[in-house]
Formats: sequence, C-alpha cells, structure tokens
Amino acid sequence: MPPRAKEAIIDCDIHQRFKSHKELYPYLSKAWQKDIDEFGLRLTTTGSGGFLNGGTGGFREDSYPADGTMAGSDLPLMREQLLDYYDIEYGILTGQDCSPVSTLPNADYANAIASAYNDWMIEHWIEPEPRLKGLALIALQNPNQAAKELERVLDHPGIVGALTQAGARFPYGQRFYDPIYEVLNDRGMPFVVHTGGEGSGWNGNPTPVGYPSYYIEARQSRAMSYQAHITSLIFEGAFDRFPNIQWVFIEGGYIWLPTFLWRLDSDWKGLRDQTPWVTRPPSEYVFERVRFTTQPMEQGEGPKSLLQIFEWGRAEKTLMFATDYPHWDFDSPEQALPRMPEELRRRIMSENAREVFKLPVRTTEALAAD
Amino acid sequence: MPPRAKEAIIDCDIHQRFKSHKELYPYLSKAWQKDIDEFGLRLTTTGSGGFLNGGTGGFREDSYPADGTMAGSDLPLMREQLLDYYDIEYGILTGQDCSPVSTLPNADYANAIASAYNDWMIEHWIEPEPRLKGLALIALQNPNQAAKELERVLDHPGIVGALTQAGARFPYGQRFYDPIYEVLNDRGMPFVVHTGGEGSGWNGNPTPVGYPSYYIEARQSRAMSYQAHITSLIFEGAFDRFPNIQWVFIEGGYIWLPTFLWRLDSDWKGLRDQTPWVTRPPSEYVFERVRFTTQPMEQGEGPKSLLQIFEWGRAEKTLMFATDYPHWDFDSPEQALPRMPEELRRRIMSENAREVFKLPVRTTEALAAD
Repeated sequence: MPPRAKEAIIDCDIHQRFKSHKELYPYLSKAWQKDIDEFGLRLTTTGSGGFLNGGTGGFREDSYPADGTMAGSDLPLMREQLLDYYDIEYGILTGQDCSPVSTLPNADYANAIASAYNDWMIEHWIEPEPRLKGLALIALQNPNQAAKELERVLDHPGIVGALTQAGARFPYGQRFYDPIYEVLNDRGMPFVVHTGGEGSGWNGNPTPVGYPSYYIEARQSRAMSYQAHITSLIFEGAFDRFPNIQWVFIEGGYIWLPTFLWRLDSDWKGLRDQTPWVTRPPSEYVFERVRFTTQPMEQGEGPKSLLQIFEWGRAEKTLMFATDYPHWDFDSPEQALPRMPEELRRRIMSENAREVFKLPVRTTEALAAD
Repeated sequence: MPPRAKEAIIDCDIHQRFKSHKELYPYLSKAWQKDIDEFGLRLTTTGSGGFLNGGTGGFREDSYPADGTMAGSDLPLMREQLLDYYDIEYGILTGQDCSPVSTLPNADYANAIASAYNDWMIEHWIEPEPRLKGLALIALQNPNQAAKELERVLDHPGIVGALTQAGARFPYGQRFYDPIYEVLNDRGMPFVVHTGGEGSGWNGNPTPVGYPSYYIEARQSRAMSYQAHITSLIFEGAFDRFPNIQWVFIEGGYIWLPTFLWRLDSDWKGLRDQTPWVTRPPSEYVFERVRFTTQPMEQGEGPKSLLQIFEWGRAEKTLMFATDYPHWDFDSPEQALPRMPEELRRRIMSENAREVFKLPVRTTEALAAD
C-alpha cells in the first residue's frame, strides 16, 4: 500500500512520453506523417545537444515499463510510482520528446508537432487521469502561429498554461513574443518555461562564451538562460504590459535568485534613466510575477543557509515543489526539502502552485471518486 | 592636499588609455599602420557591442583631461584623482581601447595590436610610474602566438600577469588555451579576465538566449560569462593541470559566487563519475585558485547580508579591491565596502592582491622617494 500524504502535494514537473512517435500520427496530416516516416521527428530527446545526461539514459532505472518502452510512457506505472505512491493532488505535465519544437528551422513543422502533442496529451493523459493537468506546448518560431495554437487548446479545462523550453533565440521579454502573451494575458494563464533546448538547433550557444564540454557544465548554464529571460522581462516592461501573466521557470534552480536580484536592484538605481518604464526595483516585479520549482533541490552550506536563501527569495510566494518524475534526479516529496516552518512548507508543496495554475482544493476522497 | 591612506590600498582595475591610437604606431609595422590609417583600429571602445553605457560616454565626467582627449589618457590627472588622492600603493592597469583584440577575425592583426599595446603600456605608464603594474594583453585567436607574446614581455618587472576579456568563443578551461597556460604556469603568474567583448565580433551572443536590448541587461550577463569560464576551468581539470596559476575575474560581480558554488558542489556529487579527474568539491578549487574584484560593489538586503555572502564566498581569500577608474561607476576606497572586521578589510583592500600579483610591501615614504 502506498503511504497516504500528510499534506497536499502539487507536483509541477512530470514528464510524460509516448511509447512510439506514431502516437502523434492521428493528429498530424498525411504529408507530415510521410516526412516523419522518412526522417524521424528530428527532435533531440533531451533538447540540449550532445551532452550525456545522468542516470539510465537520463531516467530512473525503475521507470522503464516492463514492455521495454520509454520511461514515462506508461500511465499505470506513473500512477503506481508517483501519483498513488505519494498521493499527489495534482501533477503538471511537461512532456519530453516534443519539447524542443522551438529549436527547429521549419516553423510550420514545429507548429504541427506542438499541436499534435497537445491533442495527444489531452487524449492520452489529461482526460484519462484528472489529477494530471497539461501545459499547451508552443513553437516560438512564429508567435502569431503560437497564439493561434493557444487559442485552439486553452479552453480545455485540463490545460493550465503555455509551455516552452529555456533555449531561445531571443530573451522572453522582447516584443517579438507579444502575440503569445496577449492570449495568455486575456485568460490570466501562466507562461511556463522548462529547461532544455539551450544550444540546440537554431538557438545560440548554451553559455555566453561558447559550448562547454560536459553535461554538468550545461546543467550549470540553465540558471544563466533563466536569468537572461527574467532580466529581459523586467527591462522590456513585460510585467506591466501583461499584468495577468505569471512566468514559471522549471528546473533551473532557485538559490541564485536573491543575489541575482540584488545585482539588478543595485544596477537599476544607477541606470534607471535608460529604462524609465521600470518604475520599481526589479526584485519587486519578480517576487510578484515569477515562480520557480524546487527540483533538482539545491543544497547550501550548513543547515541554516538554505532557509536564509528562501527568506531572501520570498520562497513563501516564489517557490513550488516538483519531482521531475521519471528523470534520474527525481526528488521525493518526503525527502527533498530541508526542515522549515510548516506554513512555508505548505506554500512550497502546494499553495503557490495552486494559485499560479488556479487549481481548486481537492480532498483525497474526491480524487479517489474520480 | 590629498588625504593620506590609513591602510594599504591595491587597486586591481585602472583603465589607462591613449590620447590617440597613433601612440601605438612606434610599435606597429608600416603595413599595419597603413591599414589603421585606412580603416581605423576596428575595435569597439567598450568591447560589448552596441550597448549604451552609463555616465559621460561611460566615464566620470571629471576624468576627461582639459585638452579634450580621452578619459584615462593623462597620467598626471590619474595621479591627481586616484594614485595621490587615495594614496594607492599599487594599481593594476587593465587598458581599454585595445582590450577587445580577441573579438577580431584576423589573428595576426589582433596579435600585432596586443603586442603594440604591451610595449606602449610599458613605455608610457609602467616605467614612468612605479605604482602602476601592467598585465600583458593577449589575443586568443591563436594561443601559440599568444604564448610567444607572453614570453616576449613577461620578464619585464612591471608586468604581473596576462590579460584578456570575458567574451570568448570557447570557455577558458578548454584545452585550446593550454599553450597560454603553460607559459603562465612556468612563471607562476595569474590569468586575468576583465569584463568586455561579450557578443562582439566573432564571439557568440552575450547571453545563452540571444542578444538583450539594454546595457543593464548586458551588465547582468557579465556574471554568466564568468560562471561559464569557471565551470569550464573546474571540469576540464585546469586547476590540476596548471597548479601555479591563479585566475582573476574583474568587474563581473561577486555576490553570486556562493550559491553558484553550492549548485556546482551539489551536481558534482551526483555526476562526478563523468569527470573523475575532478577529485574534490568544485568550491574547494575555486576558493584556492580564483579571485574576484569588488567594483561595481554590490549591495545586499539589510546590513548583514553582504557579510554573510562574504563569509560563504571566503572573501578573506577570494575578493580584491578595485576602483575601475576612470569609469562612471568608480568605487571610492573610502566608501565602497560595507563595515567589516579589520582583518577581512585588510585582505580585501590589499593583501589578496599582493599575493596574486606578488607585490612587495612598500611604505608611503618609499613610494614618495621613487
């Protein structure tokens, strides 16, 4: 028997996969099916170039289904290992194999894949399992096309935001992306960014000084992409232009946040005449409008250091729990977080995510009756 | 009368400039002189693309000489405003106009400019003013050529290390750079990196997600370049391969260091089998072998936060004072640092730099007699 959760848990990063890319075919034109038969999907699995991930092919060894298919491709196994085992109230699906659509050169193909992924996710995951909520994948090559895709799927009650990867040609505050933000702002839905795609396809290098050699270096650079996106959102005035959007940054770490914001606040004092539409210290915008996830849970120096960082980062508002199931560096809800005050833990484990994704409280009993 | 310093001050970042680029001509071949007459130096002043800096053209308004020439080009004025005024024991020259040599496409031209800069610096600045010490500028396009230039100039007693910019095509741990490090390692001299060149010339974008719009964003990205270089030095094993080199990173901030190292230490625990030559936690290498400068001095949240960061960052070993004279965001030796224990202040104001650059203690009287 799985343990019963003593607390509400909302898991903000669950990777679901197909057993074969042909699961997408019912949602693709015959022409695209023919191209994929000939060339494959042309999407790298990890979305971050040639780096060698950890674990077993990047995943928990026990997460591969008995039929030999891909880790994360089996809903019953996901229920057994995650949803039932930890009594997860809600899980946010972040996909895997289609996520790098925005690294592709062909905007129409990228949009077709994103669209097929969204339909597949609705039919294979969200509708069969009401604990799972989806994010609508968008291809960023053509923001007008992405906006149309969002309009097509955001009315589904199981879709709770838009999804893209961290890797990008332009930082996310730039006006290039406005058509996407207009749709989300009208509906008050979040823009969710997951690590991946940095240095892949038409994106630039994963660091400002070129391509590193090792996966651990690429992992470190995740924070850089997020810092660049957030800096852009601030100084392009995106928070004021789109007051109803929350931006969520998954799996790029959290403990860098306070000193990053201190640096921005310091510089803003000396340079604010160059961006006069930024009328408040940068940190204020971020505390209100940007959210982060826990996994991979970082460690500090000594027992109190992480709690000090959480205080400086306003973790009671800005941090949300995630497991990253079924990846090798999965974080258990029971063991991931350091000891902390009960109310802070409650905010991180469930309530911050509940607010961002607008998820009603559901009792264990109500879930069992679904 | 200038105030007398109550403490030893070593300033690790002073920008000296020429009044005209023709000051380089005595050290350049006729052929290069002709090209420069025709095309100009082809080096951007800031080395960071098209961003609009702060202050007056990027400089303190009062630092422009009365003859209308460039800020930082006048040794008597530098003495009056900086060396005498604050009773600076030593100042480390970091140049300005030639610094972006490593952004140029032509390796021979880049090396010729670096070489001319070094000769000009020796004749115009180091030899006339013994408080000033120089760093040998190198062009990174061809590390063998850079190594030869270092061998040519490092014997001069006023040269205390090698200098390059942060912007680069490859991170600085990669074996591409080994010929340079071999020369420095033989002599036990530091490799000094100054902010600049990110996104310029043949370097990639200044952030992993493309080009930002505003100078304040480019300024934020300085830390990213440094983090990528340091991560590379660690995981390529550079610290063990070159045990006699210290790496110095100027003007890219400091307060991001502790959480950056915590992230690396955490990831290393889970991934150390991929880089087994890294036998100790990454933070240990950095505390021993990497140094940073203070300017632009960052602020924290509340009076104790910076001191907490200094403790976590081992500032008593890793942090060195700098003014950045004559830039607009100049930090005064008297006002830059927060209140701190006397010994910690002494390490930051002078002793860490004294060790890295191997500078003997000199009394005020000895300096006056020079």
